[in-house]
Amino acid sequence: MDIALINPFLAAAKHVLKTMAGVDVRPGKPFLKKDDLAKGDVSAIIGITGVASGSMALVFTEKCILGIVSSLLGESYPKINDDVRDAVGELTNMICGDGRRRLAADGFSLQAGVPTIVSGKDHSIRHFADGPRLAVPFETDHGAFMVEVAFGKPH
Amino acid sequence: MDIALINPFLAAAKHVLKTMAGVDVRPGKPFLKKDDLAKGDVSAIIGITGVASGSMALVFTEKCILGIVSSLLGESYPKINDDVRDAVGELTNMICGDGRRRLAADGFSLQAGVPTIVSGKDHSIRHFADGPRLAVPFETDHGAFMVEVAFGKPH
Repeated sequence: MDIALINPFLAAAKHVLKTMAGVDVRPGKPFLKKDDLAKGDVSAIIGITGVASGSMALVFTEKCILGIVSSLLGESYPKINDDVRDAVGELTNMICGDGRRRLAADGFSLQAGVPTIVSGKDHSIRHFADGPRLAVPFETDHGAFMVEVAFGKPH
Repeated sequence: MDIALINPFLAAAKHVLKTMAGVDVRPGKPFLKKDDLAKGDVSAIIGITGVASGSMALVFTEKCILGIVSSLLGESYPKINDDVRDAVGELTNMICGDGRRRLAADGFSLQAGVPTIVSGKDHSIRHFADGPRLAVPFETDHGAFMVEVAFGKPH
C-alpha cells in the first residue's frame, strides 16, 4: 500500500479535529492490521475510488466520541444519539475532504462516497481489500480512536 | 433519489444469492428510512461514486447470514468467524459488481470502493447522505436481511 495515499488522511484527521472541535490528537505508531481486534462503539466508514479503490474507517470508543462531539458542538452529550451520529458523519466528510485536497495537491485524484455511521457496543470492522490494511491509533484527552485505511486495485 | 439507480442493486442481490448460494430471496416493500431501526449482527458496507455519490449496506441477522454462507460454501458454519466475514465481502463485491454492470447497460457509470464488514450484535447503520435513504427488506428461508441504498450529490 502506498503510504503516500495514507498520510494525507492522518494529517487531515489531526487538522480537522483540532480546528473544528479543539481536540488535540496524538497519532501513535501505525501498524498493519492482520485481524479485527480493534473494537469500537461508533464507527464511520467511507468508500474511496479513483487512482485506488478502498475504504477508510474511523473507529471510536463511546467515551472518546462523546468528548469530541461535546467539544465540537459546545454542549454536553452524555450518550450516543442521532445528533452525535450526524456529527460523526460531518467530521468524517471533513476529514475525507481535507485528505483528498491534500492528495490532489500531490497529483492524486480520489473520489469519496458518503459516510455510513455504525453504532453498537464493541463492534469490529474488517476491510475486504486485496491490499494491506493500515491502522493508526490516536490518543486524545477524551480517550483513544483508530483510523483504518485499506486500498486495493481500482475496479 | 432516482429509483433507476436502486433497482439494479436489488436485482443483483436476488440474482447473486440465487446463482452463487442457491438461496431464494423474496424482496419486500421498499420504504424510505427515517431512522436507524434496522439492526443487524453482520453488515457489509460499500461506498459508491460516479454519477452519484452514495453507499450501499447489506444488513444481516446472524441466523440469516450463517444460512446463506453455509449454503454458499457447502459447509456448516454455526457461528460468525473470519470465513463468514470474508464470504460476506465476496458476496457484496459480486452484488455490487452485478448491479454496476446492469446500470452501465442503462448508461450510468458508477465506481465502487471495497466492502467493509461490520460484526457486532445488534448494531445499527446510519447513512450520512444528503438524499433519501431507501431500505428494502428481503426474506429468505434462513431469515431476513435488509438492503439499504443512499445517494447524495456527487462530490
